[in-house]
Amino acid sequence: MPKKIVAFGEVMMRLQVPGYELLTQSNTLQYSFSGTGVNVASAMTKLGYNGYLVTKLPDNPIGDAAISFLQRLGIARDFISKGGKYVGMYFLENGFGQRASRVTYTNRLESSFNTAVISDFDMDLIAENADIIHFCGITLAMTEQVRENMKMLAKKVKEKGGLICFDCNYRPSLWDGGYTKARPHYEDMLQLADIVLMNEKDAIYILGMETKATSKEDQLKELIPRVAKKFNIQTIAGTHRAINSDNTHSLKGYMYKNDAFVFSKNISFSVYDRIGAGDAYTSGILHGELSGFPAEKTVQFAAAAGMLACTIVGDTPMSTETEILSTMAGNIEDIKR
Amino acid sequence: MPKKIVAFGEVMMRLQVPGYELLTQSNTLQYSFSGTGVNVASAMTKLGYNGYLVTKLPDNPIGDAAISFLQRLGIARDFISKGGKYVGMYFLENGFGQRASRVTYTNRLESSFNTAVISDFDMDLIAENADIIHFCGITLAMTEQVRENMKMLAKKVKEKGGLICFDCNYRPSLWDGGYTKARPHYEDMLQLADIVLMNEKDAIYILGMETKATSKEDQLKELIPRVAKKFNIQTIAGTHRAINSDNTHSLKGYMYKNDAFVFSKNISFSVYDRIGAGDAYTSGILHGELSGFPAEKTVQFAAAAGMLACTIVGDTPMSTETEILSTMAGNIEDIKR
Amino acid sequence: MPKKIVAFGEVMMRLQVPGYELLTQSNTLQYSFSGTGVNVASAMTKLGYNGYLVTKLPDNPIGDAAISFLQRLGIARDFISKGGKYVGMYFLENGFGQRASRVTYTNRLESSFNTAVISDFDMDLIAENADIIHFCGITLAMTEQVRENMKMLAKKVKEKGGLICFDCNYRPSLWDGGYTKARPHYEDMLQLADIVLMNEKDAIYILGMETKATSKEDQLKELIPRVAKKFNIQTIAGTHRAINSDNTHSLKGYMYKNDAFVFSKNISFSVYDRIGAGDAYTSGILHGELSGFPAEKTVQFAAAAGMLACTIVGDTPMSTETEILSTMAGNIEDIKR
Amino acid sequence: MPKKIVAFGEVMMRLQVPGYELLTQSNTLQYSFSGTGVNVASAMTKLGYNGYLVTKLPDNPIGDAAISFLQRLGIARDFISKGGKYVGMYFLENGFGQRASRVTYTNRLESSFNTAVISDFDMDLIAENADIIHFCGITLAMTEQVRENMKMLAKKVKEKGGLICFDCNYRPSLWDGGYTKARPHYEDMLQLADIVLMNEKDAIYILGMETKATSKEDQLKELIPRVAKKFNIQTIAGTHRAINSDNTHSLKGYMYKNDAFVFSKNISFSVYDRIGAGDAYTSGILHGELSGFPAEKTVQFAAAAGMLACTIVGDTPMSTETEILSTMAGNIEDIKR
Amino acid sequence: MPKKIVAFGEVMMRLQVPGYELLTQSNTLQYSFSGTGVNVASAMTKLGYNGYLVTKLPDNPIGDAAISFLQRLGIARDFISKGGKYVGMYFLENGFGQRASRVTYTNRLESSFNTAVISDFDMDLIAENADIIHFCGITLAMTEQVRENMKMLAKKVKEKGGLICFDCNYRPSLWDGGYTKARPHYEDMLQLADIVLMNEKDAIYILGMETKATSKEDQLKELIPRVAKKFNIQTIAGTHRAINSDNTHSLKGYMYKNDAFVFSKNISFSVYDRIGAGDAYTSGILHGELSGFPAEKTVQFAAAAGMLACTIVGDTPMSTETEILSTMAGNIEDIKR
Amino acid sequence: MPKKIVAFGEVMMRLQVPGYELLTQSNTLQYSFSGTGVNVASAMTKLGYNGYLVTKLPDNPIGDAAISFLQRLGIARDFISKGGKYVGMYFLENGFGQRASRVTYTNRLESSFNTAVISDFDMDLIAENADIIHFCGITLAMTEQVRENMKMLAKKVKEKGGLICFDCNYRPSLWDGGYTKARPHYEDMLQLADIVLMNEKDAIYILGMETKATSKEDQLKELIPRVAKKFNIQTIAGTHRAINSDNTHSLKGYMYKNDAFVFSKNISFSVYDRIGAGDAYTSGILHGELSGFPAEKTVQFAAAAGMLACTIVGDTPMSTETEILSTMAGNIEDIKR
Repeated sequence: MPKKIVAFGEVMMRLQVPGYELLTQSNTLQYSFSGTGVNVASAMTKLGYNGYLVTKLPDNPIGDAAISFLQRLGIARDFISKGGKYVGMYFLENGFGQRASRVTYTNRLESSFNTAVISDFDMDLIAENADIIHFCGITLAMTEQVRENMKMLAKKVKEKGGLICFDCNYRPSLWDGGYTKARPHYEDMLQLADIVLMNEKDAIYILGMETKATSKEDQLKELIPRVAKKFNIQTIAGTHRAINSDNTHSLKGYMYKNDAFVFSKNISFSVYDRIGAGDAYTSGILHGELSGFPAEKTVQFAAAAGMLACTIVGDTPMSTETEILSTMAGNIEDIKR
Repeated sequence: MPKKIVAFGEVMMRLQVPGYELLTQSNTLQYSFSGTGVNVASAMTKLGYNGYLVTKLPDNPIGDAAISFLQRLGIARDFISKGGKYVGMYFLENGFGQRASRVTYTNRLESSFNTAVISDFDMDLIAENADIIHFCGITLAMTEQVRENMKMLAKKVKEKGGLICFDCNYRPSLWDGGYTKARPHYEDMLQLADIVLMNEKDAIYILGMETKATSKEDQLKELIPRVAKKFNIQTIAGTHRAINSDNTHSLKGYMYKNDAFVFSKNISFSVYDRIGAGDAYTSGILHGELSGFPAEKTVQFAAAAGMLACTIVGDTPMSTETEILSTMAGNIEDIKR
Repeated sequence: MPKKIVAFGEVMMRLQVPGYELLTQSNTLQYSFSGTGVNVASAMTKLGYNGYLVTKLPDNPIGDAAISFLQRLGIARDFISKGGKYVGMYFLENGFGQRASRVTYTNRLESSFNTAVISDFDMDLIAENADIIHFCGITLAMTEQVRENMKMLAKKVKEKGGLICFDCNYRPSLWDGGYTKARPHYEDMLQLADIVLMNEKDAIYILGMETKATSKEDQLKELIPRVAKKFNIQTIAGTHRAINSDNTHSLKGYMYKNDAFVFSKNISFSVYDRIGAGDAYTSGILHGELSGFPAEKTVQFAAAAGMLACTIVGDTPMSTETEILSTMAGNIEDIKR
Repeated sequence: MPKKIVAFGEVMMRLQVPGYELLTQSNTLQYSFSGTGVNVASAMTKLGYNGYLVTKLPDNPIGDAAISFLQRLGIARDFISKGGKYVGMYFLENGFGQRASRVTYTNRLESSFNTAVISDFDMDLIAENADIIHFCGITLAMTEQVRENMKMLAKKVKEKGGLICFDCNYRPSLWDGGYTKARPHYEDMLQLADIVLMNEKDAIYILGMETKATSKEDQLKELIPRVAKKFNIQTIAGTHRAINSDNTHSLKGYMYKNDAFVFSKNISFSVYDRIGAGDAYTSGILHGELSGFPAEKTVQFAAAAGMLACTIVGDTPMSTETEILSTMAGNIEDIKR
Repeated sequence: MPKKIVAFGEVMMRLQVPGYELLTQSNTLQYSFSGTGVNVASAMTKLGYNGYLVTKLPDNPIGDAAISFLQRLGIARDFISKGGKYVGMYFLENGFGQRASRVTYTNRLESSFNTAVISDFDMDLIAENADIIHFCGITLAMTEQVRENMKMLAKKVKEKGGLICFDCNYRPSLWDGGYTKARPHYEDMLQLADIVLMNEKDAIYILGMETKATSKEDQLKELIPRVAKKFNIQTIAGTHRAINSDNTHSLKGYMYKNDAFVFSKNISFSVYDRIGAGDAYTSGILHGELSGFPAEKTVQFAAAAGMLACTIVGDTPMSTETEILSTMAGNIEDIKR
Repeated sequence: MPKKIVAFGEVMMRLQVPGYELLTQSNTLQYSFSGTGVNVASAMTKLGYNGYLVTKLPDNPIGDAAISFLQRLGIARDFISKGGKYVGMYFLENGFGQRASRVTYTNRLESSFNTAVISDFDMDLIAENADIIHFCGITLAMTEQVRENMKMLAKKVKEKGGLICFDCNYRPSLWDGGYTKARPHYEDMLQLADIVLMNEKDAIYILGMETKATSKEDQLKELIPRVAKKFNIQTIAGTHRAINSDNTHSLKGYMYKNDAFVFSKNISFSVYDRIGAGDAYTSGILHGELSGFPAEKTVQFAAAAGMLACTIVGDTPMSTETEILSTMAGNIEDIKR
């Protein structure tokens, strides 16, 4: 019986201009539904787990379309509440070469998820079932009510023995009060968390930690152990990413566990769709931990999962363990027949 | 120098599932931008006038796309204000046969237009330029601020000698307080209006008029003259519409002016896209009045314009005077070479 | 807890030329996955039940795509076995007016489902869970092994108290030996069945019953009671269908139960996609029976479900109870806002 | 060895707006290559003959695309000359209901075909091979040189014993000098022709014949025998067509041969693509004559071929003899499996 | 009040095979309308100016579509004349890697623009309004009448104090008589011009200047000052471009003004759509000059504008000043949220 | 009169997911028809020969579509037999960057071609007409009957003086018995062959030859002359290919003839569609040999043909001699106007 991986988060409708046209040039959009929770739950499904999403969607054709899409990804609808009025949306115009991709959001705070209250979710049932539950800093940025929902659910799962995974994922544009406003909420979540996704910037800016180290590697090595200690976190992982002058991307993953760091190779690769790569990395870490991989394998696996997610259409990772392991082995295959 | 026809209203983004799939089945949408004001301004442009829209759109890629789309329709951007955050949207799933089309709205009250204030518009400049200005009951349903903007603009145009056209267009789902809440605002607009689009239902339900007549034709003939008299309206026009069992639609137009009714023939026709047909009818009435058509010709022209709008993709009428007159002549042509 | 509706059957890949081009003219296909079992399980899901499919699909990208598609429809993957090599396929070219639609099959007998053996399915688990299980005469036509699988499963479900629904659905092109070969297998299934879909032609040709009645209505009224009696079947239902000269279709449903016939109105309607209408009718009968509808309502509901399925893209019915009841009320709506 | 059917004529590039958008609304076109000669040669190929086209196309990517398209239709490239600069083009916007389809031409007189000279074609080789050669009044309207090419080829084929088929197909917009200019050229072609497609209007307007009959049927019955006699034509055939108020079309075919008229039933049908129906009718007449069908069957076959061509995407008929005969039998089939 | 930038030139219909298929493989085209004048006027509109085009388009659906498209780009229709018969067209097949893109033209000399006469344009009105007017060597290559129109308009604008911008843009295939025929016309335009786009090859081949320098840089440095002096030109600018072995392109811009050269960095970048990059460079030069940028900034801005135009779908630049400045800063951004 | 190049082989239907989606994500496929024989025959047609295919296709809409597609490519239908039931198919999901493309086959052994018998082909007629006939190791892997058909045809052509070209093209997944089973059949074909496509791996694995050389170059230089001698083969050619870390591909061609090796440059290039590049190489060798090119030119021409095939959509090479020669010259062109 596969483990049950639950994610808590908003479902966004992604509306993408096909090809490389701008919204002012095109007349067509391709739509899908995603979000950090969707991406992690779906990625874990592809890796052999039972993926669940705790969310709320409107009882209208858009909500129905969202649920159909999630089911297509293999996510169970058991913990999806229906009601409210809207789905958050974002428009994506693909960049090319020196021209960056562009994301434009529509109203989000009035969405079904962001107006949900605690009674919308059967938190006890969820807590009884979740082997791992995943939360994300984007959700934390929404409203006081959403934060309350989130912390309550985290506590209930923790009480029942489920693992709490928290991805810091700080988005400056979403926090009106900036780091000062965000800090206590992040601290609350870190207190509860067993597995945390973050890097040195989160420690410095969100948690306000200080360091004299100047390179990001040194900052990481100094600060992450302090975070792990302070909040008593079992595993912390994350990535350093860069965009190269030839438009390829580079990714180097790390994991800190049992007082030790491991790093993946710094891998470079072509990118088709950048969004969701971080969630693929998260799913790789979770899978490694759940499978008892050695730390070196886990971090390499997570990095490969992140890379493959960049070659997949849409936000949501689609790769199986076999595919990720094959890519880790470093072969560039011709055609798989 | 063509006359300047100005419309005041919100620009909506229309997101349509192509073909006959449902949102749960498809992955593609076609988008355009419309709204009653857009439709009337554009239709008048096709009829040879200079069309303007008074609206507000966000300064982001969606707002830019909306402006490009309006310009494509021939609408001048001179009176379009930029700012605010969002564009109202609606999703359209095409019906087929016995299955009706379905419209799902997203948040609308937070749109740039619906959060605009009086200072967003250069009302004096607009008033100096408008030969006719068009308003719509949908706009009236939005917020207190929008109603204030609307009435202020109507007054300024009236003072400068422009004609006020008001389309009652009552949408029950948009008025929280129902007819009771709507009535005084409708009365304010009718006091200002020179040309009004409505029928007997509006008189009965919005204005609370009573009649013992039972057929809609008799109700119309009794109530419309009373409305014209009470509010001192020069011209009132409207339609009776029906959907036939073979999925064709029927339309019969009327116009009341100089104490007399004229009616168009009751025409039946196949429908490709129903939305916007009423705005085409309005534009036909305006064109007839501005051109000094005899009333019989005006109402027939307006009905033909409404019918042709149903054969055109999208909300917005695209037919020229020549095309409408040719259709009025009743020929079903084969192929125009 | 919704009832569990299980269907047993092959998943076919449907490859449809978009629009009205022929395969020799086009270069594009739209694909989906369907089959009588898929259609019934999915239709029941839309009506509020938990739908399951018992089938076998290959462990390759096409099998994965099929499962994703079934999940999108809301069908649970619990009883889907993986293995074998192929998926049966059919190509569909849409007809227009006097030109009929055309279906071309690829190899089917080598499909994963048609090469499955009893041990591929956990029949005991299925039998414990099925409130109703649905079988179809198309499946019966496949191979001796498939027939064996089918009868074994039917028996196990019956033993556990589940209802057996059997749709005769005789396809002449699939039976090498014709009616003679088919008859004993149909008789086996009818012995087990509680609810049967068929009409007088099945009684005459498959079961070899004789009648002197000449009209199909009279034949129906004479033969169906004899079938019900002979095989001790609780409910028999079916349709008479016709294509009218204006390319609309007509459908009249019947149900025979408790020694009495009820008939739906003979309804006429435009057709977008004919395939799957019969399965929608079946789902309507099942829903009426499970909901304790009066027989008149059940048969009318089933007919309306069949009609609506003809307005939906693809083989698979997508309508909810609300939508079907609204259509039964006979309103042709304009636009649902 | 199938008979060789040769057609002489221009290849036009057809650029069609998909769906029902106007050129001002869309951004996409579907292209194909057609023309009366293309349509007849291709239709005859589908009926089992070897189809050839005598034409000239530029030696550039558009000419290459045209040849590929003709080959796809089954037309042999043996008699296609390469050179010149351009291909004639036309844009097609589909009408809907009361809105007619619209065709817009680009430059045509500078096309490779219309600037070709006699030495561009190996007329002797063609004449040796053609069992039938088909000409069309559209070609006759082009230039003096084209007319010369056409008459020369007709003479050579006639000398070698091939049959000359001439379709009057008078297009007013193509003749600068009107009927007066056209008449002598039509007379030249009629002198050479064995099988002619025309109706009473051609006799009256092009040939200047007079009649006191008032109905088109009476005019036809009076004038066609006079034409046949005057020009010594073996077979004359044609159609009367009408568009009905429900947008269906009606077609009634006739054939005059051996001093007797036969008429097809007046058939009504839905139309997907009107262009090319006349060429399908021609191909039906030719096939009937070549197959020795009784006249009644020939004219009915031709009418059915014309009707089916209206259900096919594009200008070019695609139906086989089997399909046409099946349609003649009058069955509206459901789905051909 | 933004300055008015006017361009004089032909509007071409661009018909592009989507993706990487050849015309012989595809059946679909995407169309847009462009031309050097269109590109410059539109690019200036995006940079905040009022863009106008002086051209002539047919009064038919293709002309209407062209005007709609120009309006969508923000170009005013005030100076567009209607009449004539045709629009020039070109077909574009995208190259990939070592396979070059391919352009095939249709008839151009019979277009509405190329058959226009002086009285088709209200030259006095244009001259009163143009702050800058842009001309191009492609237009100069058309017909004697076009050249006459062009020079007349240039003179009138110059008289009224507008600046004349002339882009040499010599296309060998368009000049029957080669450089000898072109030279006097180029000299006429250079006499009138204030801002000229050219490089050393134009000086050598068109103007027949001689130099002993061998590298293109040295030739440029020697010849451009001689050109500026001879024709009394205020500003001359241009680019050196190269295609690298990895299919990236390189671009280095220069500007000569006040007896001094400035050069941009030699930038390398991926290219999505090459056509129109030169026009973007021109618009960058014009914007820098009108904004009083230092020469170094102007040339760098123009180069960045040229680069960004290569990342945009279609011929026409779409970037704003903000976007170009951001690219100049050299950041490769990830995703703009 | 161009030489007649005949290929013997199966036609496969290629069903490709457009863009970079997976089968589980998309709902659309693009289809074409290909196969080694198709590719070689078509490539030779583009190079100026008359291309024929000996194959068998079902007499149904898919078979018709295949024939239309082959004709579009210029392949003559004279030697195509009709009958049997199915066409072999494969699904293609495009890879991106580190994610490889993926091919999934459907049933193949039951295809019309693979169930054909000798009497399905008019082998004597083919033998009389073939200047060269091409066979492929993929075909050899099918069934005993197919092998018999193939060897019989090869013998008949050889007797009539045609050249036999054999491409080893060993696909491990197709041979149940592996190299041991394949060897005698390969030896049979090599005995008959005049021109062979292979490299050192084929010699080692299929033919079981031994060598102490370790680099593939040395193995090639040792083994190919031994193969040529043993089987008395006039010309042997082939390639070494590699995928580079930046996803470009490299190709180096060789040809062994008259006891001497020639090698092409090792060229690197971007790849759009890898499938069919080997067939393009083959066609280049055949063209060089038939044209009497010096060996160095032949091998360089073949390599350039292979490279260009990778830039073309679909399996089938589309380049002309002019285009290949231009690419050989090494110019990266900008835009061909």
